[in-house]
Amino acid sequence: MSKSVLFSGFTIVTPHDDSPVSVIENGYCSVFRSHIVYVGTSKEEAEVALKASGAEVWFVYEGKNKILCPTFANAHAHTPMSIFRNIADDTSLQDWLFGEIIPREDKMISGDFYYGNLLTLAEMIEGGTACAANMYDGQIEIAKGAIETGFRVQQTVMGKTFKDGVWSVDRKNVEDFLAFIKEQNTELIKPSLLVHSIYLYPEEFYKPLSEVAKEFDLPVSVHISETKTEIENCVKSYGVSPVVKLDEAGLLCDTTVAAHCVHLDDQDRMILSDRKVWVAHNPSSNMKLASGLADLFKMQKAGVRLCLGTDGAASNNNQDMFQEMKLASFIAKGSTCDPTLLSASEVFTMATRNGYLACGFEDCGIIDKGYRADIQIIDYDCPQMWPLGNPVSSLVYSCGPKCVESVMIDGNFVLYKHELKTIDLEKVKEETKKTMMRLK
Amino acid sequence: MSKSVLFSGFTIVTPHDDSPVSVIENGYCSVFRSHIVYVGTSKEEAEVALKASGAEVWFVYEGKNKILCPTFANAHAHTPMSIFRNIADDTSLQDWLFGEIIPREDKMISGDFYYGNLLTLAEMIEGGTACAANMYDGQIEIAKGAIETGFRVQQTVMGKTFKDGVWSVDRKNVEDFLAFIKEQNTELIKPSLLVHSIYLYPEEFYKPLSEVAKEFDLPVSVHISETKTEIENCVKSYGVSPVVKLDEAGLLCDTTVAAHCVHLDDQDRMILSDRKVWVAHNPSSNMKLASGLADLFKMQKAGVRLCLGTDGAASNNNQDMFQEMKLASFIAKGSTCDPTLLSASEVFTMATRNGYLACGFEDCGIIDKGYRADIQIIDYDCPQMWPLGNPVSSLVYSCGPKCVESVMIDGNFVLYKHELKTIDLEKVKEETKKTMMRLK
Repeated sequence: MSKSVLFSGFTIVTPHDDSPVSVIENGYCSVFRSHIVYVGTSKEEAEVALKASGAEVWFVYEGKNKILCPTFANAHAHTPMSIFRNIADDTSLQDWLFGEIIPREDKMISGDFYYGNLLTLAEMIEGGTACAANMYDGQIEIAKGAIETGFRVQQTVMGKTFKDGVWSVDRKNVEDFLAFIKEQNTELIKPSLLVHSIYLYPEEFYKPLSEVAKEFDLPVSVHISETKTEIENCVKSYGVSPVVKLDEAGLLCDTTVAAHCVHLDDQDRMILSDRKVWVAHNPSSNMKLASGLADLFKMQKAGVRLCLGTDGAASNNNQDMFQEMKLASFIAKGSTCDPTLLSASEVFTMATRNGYLACGFEDCGIIDKGYRADIQIIDYDCPQMWPLGNPVSSLVYSCGPKCVESVMIDGNFVLYKHELKTIDLEKVKEETKKTMMRLK
Repeated sequence: MSKSVLFSGFTIVTPHDDSPVSVIENGYCSVFRSHIVYVGTSKEEAEVALKASGAEVWFVYEGKNKILCPTFANAHAHTPMSIFRNIADDTSLQDWLFGEIIPREDKMISGDFYYGNLLTLAEMIEGGTACAANMYDGQIEIAKGAIETGFRVQQTVMGKTFKDGVWSVDRKNVEDFLAFIKEQNTELIKPSLLVHSIYLYPEEFYKPLSEVAKEFDLPVSVHISETKTEIENCVKSYGVSPVVKLDEAGLLCDTTVAAHCVHLDDQDRMILSDRKVWVAHNPSSNMKLASGLADLFKMQKAGVRLCLGTDGAASNNNQDMFQEMKLASFIAKGSTCDPTLLSASEVFTMATRNGYLACGFEDCGIIDKGYRADIQIIDYDCPQMWPLGNPVSSLVYSCGPKCVESVMIDGNFVLYKHELKTIDLEKVKEETKKTMMRLK
């Protein structure tokens, strides 16, 4: 596939950093190698921009009845968990996690992470997602698969290790992963430091891990205040909420991605806002595991920075960001009886631009000159989206993975007219099925 | 396409009237003309059943990595409203209905109902739906389109008319529609009497319309207790809730389909249960228009009969029953903090068998010998549903329209391997776009 593409005659939809989502009708978008070099309404200017960039020939992608918009950045995922899809439903987070998931995870071996991750990347791509904040072990296998696929991942690495019956802080694991990324010479992988949660990481790790994060300039990935039980136990142990406890240890800052944040008080919201933490909202998972309804409106009002994630396929049970957008908006409206809350424009920005920012990819998530070419093409020439009406509403409230025609990441088509270009899906399905059977 | 089909080697999933959803692995299902003549695990018996029915040849549909299950019966829809899709979002029901929708509806002309309905039927079929309780004017146009498509509709007819500046009860409109259905000699269309709502139908119509329903043996279709405003105004006018008021007029019985029912008290639930009313739950629409969260659990506990609907495409904004199932279950779990509520089995039964019963199609919605062949084929050979795990969970929590491969209604394929067989989609899109532009 040519490295220069002229997208011609599209409805172009894009978020911005300081204004609502905008729409260009009959728009053109030129991509040269990994970057967008033109966005506007002139075919001639689009061609001039390609020539000026050094392109001699280019592929023309026709846009009749099609939307061009940024791909999604899924701000909270556990990609290998697709191998646990639909094994334990209609049960509590505690029973699900400790009774079904962790016993299986304990039996995972090399290769399980690689193929489980690829299965999820395939699903994500088919649903318009190009980037994920991924919290899981197996960081080398996962990063390898993402690089082969051409997919962006902010991948966690553990800063502690289990040896001779005790856990201790492990700088070497972090150094090894950073060295691996450096060797790969890739812009697709960003590392982050795992601090799973208050309930899985005891107090003695907070300060040392905070120092590791600072030393290696690493973002921190953490689950915060997902369930009432978590808060109750934290208050019992430490006398304060998980947000306060983690903040005291210096783990909350403008690169921290905090998943869930379902049960917060005013002080928690103020801290998350002051520290510029990215809160990854997970509406499906929170509702399915009955953790509760996160109050997006109160977080918005407090100035908390919001993005959106699916959580793992074992607690959702798919990776459909269209569903998450719709659900996020609907919960905000339905639970407050205010239909104006969390508009299509706001939730689309959360799912795209904000997700990329949370994952540390600052030059992605906006369709404009100078940004990286992470682009999805939506075919609205189908009953589900017809007639189009407001394109932003249509993307959030009507669209779904069925309408995703193509996905480009960093200028490469990873999905082209509904066909995955960089993943051997048959092999991935065979291997993940074997893994699921073995872990039964 | 052959009228005899042998579905071979499927995972067969079916609801029942008095037990949870069951699964047959490597199952066979024989269809002769409009009916299922065999379901089980023996290929030989499946062939014997076809021969015994009189079939000499049959088409074999292979089921590797595929689920066979009943199609959905959408228990509350307004099919022509797809022409208003995404025109007015993030606004209140009152502003939306009276400011945006009704002014456009007032300008609708013959043909708009026909093509708007067909657009929605196309979307429904692509999403595995084969039957709808449809509340809208234009009953003759809608019924014609449904018959041509081969789609089941319980279609409302108005029992009042506007003449010389006043509304009056209109028996003739009802008689004309019943005569039309009789002429068509079809089993696809069932009539029902429209009693839109307490807020659009004044008191003087309740008793006369109740008599019309009894005289013609017609089910009643009604919106009940959708918003707090509706209840407040009803209590102000009549001193009682909408449920009590409609019950006093004799409008609630075992064939009544009551949409929404968001705001109910104990007495309301007791009446709905005693009268065996079918409550059509509309989770997306209730949340999008911020009507509130209907308490499914309390309705279940009170013994209220539950089914599921999308509402019109103007307030949802699609017709995806997979999304409604997932959302119904998630709201029940998330809003009560009990993850065991509204299991996959319960919500799948609501969306299939119960919907058919509510629409008056008693021999549909179960995959068993003697039932009509309303069947959808789900291809789970895709990242979104892989590995399969529990098939019932997978249908409710992972699946979507993208995975619907084929839809059979009354023994006819209306969707075959992703291709609509009975709707001229290009013509329908052209006409509905024209209508949308004209009504701007």
